[in-house]
Amino acid sequence: MNSIANIDDLRALLQALPQGDVAAASAIEARQARLTKPLGSLGRLEELAAWLGRWQGREVPRLDRVEVLVFAGNHGATARGVSAYPASVTAQMVANFERGGAAINQICKTVGATLRVIALKLDSPTGDFTEGPAMSEGDFVESVAVGFGAVPDFTDLLCLGEMGIGNTTAASALAAALFGGGGESWAGRGTGLDDAGLARKRETIDAGLRRHETHHADPLVAAQVFGGYELAAILGATLAARLRSIPVLLDGFVATAAAAPLGGFRQDALDHAEIAHCSAEAGHRALCAALGKRPLLDLDMRLGEASGAALAVPLLRAALACHLGMATFDEAGVDERA
Amino acid sequence: MNSIANIDDLRALLQALPQGDVAAASAIEARQARLTKPLGSLGRLEELAAWLGRWQGREVPRLDRVEVLVFAGNHGATARGVSAYPASVTAQMVANFERGGAAINQICKTVGATLRVIALKLDSPTGDFTEGPAMSEGDFVESVAVGFGAVPDFTDLLCLGEMGIGNTTAASALAAALFGGGGESWAGRGTGLDDAGLARKRETIDAGLRRHETHHADPLVAAQVFGGYELAAILGATLAARLRSIPVLLDGFVATAAAAPLGGFRQDALDHAEIAHCSAEAGHRALCAALGKRPLLDLDMRLGEASGAALAVPLLRAALACHLGMATFDEAGVDERA
Repeated sequence: MNSIANIDDLRALLQALPQGDVAAASAIEARQARLTKPLGSLGRLEELAAWLGRWQGREVPRLDRVEVLVFAGNHGATARGVSAYPASVTAQMVANFERGGAAINQICKTVGATLRVIALKLDSPTGDFTEGPAMSEGDFVESVAVGFGAVPDFTDLLCLGEMGIGNTTAASALAAALFGGGGESWAGRGTGLDDAGLARKRETIDAGLRRHETHHADPLVAAQVFGGYELAAILGATLAARLRSIPVLLDGFVATAAAAPLGGFRQDALDHAEIAHCSAEAGHRALCAALGKRPLLDLDMRLGEASGAALAVPLLRAALACHLGMATFDEAGVDERA
Repeated sequence: MNSIANIDDLRALLQALPQGDVAAASAIEARQARLTKPLGSLGRLEELAAWLGRWQGREVPRLDRVEVLVFAGNHGATARGVSAYPASVTAQMVANFERGGAAINQICKTVGATLRVIALKLDSPTGDFTEGPAMSEGDFVESVAVGFGAVPDFTDLLCLGEMGIGNTTAASALAAALFGGGGESWAGRGTGLDDAGLARKRETIDAGLRRHETHHADPLVAAQVFGGYELAAILGATLAARLRSIPVLLDGFVATAAAAPLGGFRQDALDHAEIAHCSAEAGHRALCAALGKRPLLDLDMRLGEASGAALAVPLLRAALACHLGMATFDEAGVDERA
């Protein structure tokens, strides 16, 4: 277990990222070419099999243990009327997760994944980023460490998601700080804002960007200043997964924004992560493009709580089943190309 | 069991299509609005739950029995060098399906679906449509009836796909006849044609369109003239499913083209069918748009054999699990919108 005491410790970890098992991925690609199908005709399923192998470090990847982690946090900026729901809903939804009543509970059951929910200081929301940093460096790093520590030493796939009333505002501000633009480009309707609420959200983001203008250059500081506890935890979990040979599925807009500072710091830092679902939340498509990622699913969802990430698990299971179970042209006695 | 002796019998069936259980769909939509999630935030999963209910005729839809039907046929036009693989591969792949070695076998296992493969006269390919109709009316209707009869009386979901070397050429010609354009707009590389092969394929399609110019106006006659046995069977199975309250997932380009004459004949005839996956085959996106359909998945696949259709089954299972398993706001004690 690496100890993370400050942002410099994070920078140090990011200097020495493992690159996965490229040979395993090559072996998988070579086998794909011999299976009874036209070359490349399973499209992204073939890429996913090789990606699993590379980041698991196995020529024969597996998906026996799939873990879904949902981090929850509260946000000071909710006082500015940037959400359609009251902040009380964060804790109520955490209770709903624990009783098994939320969407993510049902999806985990159907896809064979284990759900763990980690609430971070729900009674102490982050600061309002229009007035100061959302978190102190100490609070930020502590939340990163919670996420880092929540990743098991061994699991085959990690799905990361979040719950936090107001956190699309934090995610939008963070995306703007990392990739330019302002409230106009990044704010969406979140859980269902009306026009007046959307205008308040844009203004809040722009006010935050003006307040912290000097911090935009450093992606990790931007995460501290604009983010939230649950976003920081996702960042930590994404980094821990890289160090422990665990491929990651990121959920929608907030989870992507949470991990984005890693990609902002170092372009290959998210190579072990796929974005599972393109959220209907306004900024997600642009955020994926900025990170050079193409989401696996696009089903107009905008729920968060790792629902999109868990929903993509069966695609990986199918990719693996095809890779491991199909006959080769030789085995099946099927003629190759004319 | 309706008896189908000629194209007029098909027309008669199409005059009296059931419209599904709209009240069941409304009840499902009303429940969705009370579940613990922002309104509409499960996007297409919510639509899919209502769609299943409407076409199963059940307020509580189910997916206990999911059946995948793969129809196989051979094509006279292969003599014109329009495929990267020899025609012998159709029968070899059918044998591979039967031994469990193909992609569709693996995907069916992971998604909990039953696979049935029905080969139609593999030793007697259809005619070359540049020289005459691909099928006589009698042969066409016979294949439609095979597909019609292959649909079980009771199943919860039907996935339809095909195998047939040369059949993207038939599908492209049929799409062109139904929606305009020629080989240039509709032909793709199929299983992996090189540039010369693609040019031959386009010419073949254009020659067919010239040869049968007068038949374009009638979608069902176009299916007879340009299609194939397996395409006709998919048309028949899609129609039978409508009459038996079974929702349908259509696979990629060929399966969509096969069912398209129903939509060409009558715009609402495919309301009980979703297109599961947008094929990487060139014409599929345009074909889906022409039918007013948005595919559920888009993963660069172009394999056929119902692989894309089966791959979408877990999305429906998740949609149903959320709909049936989630707590309502009241049950969970979660505050509603501020």
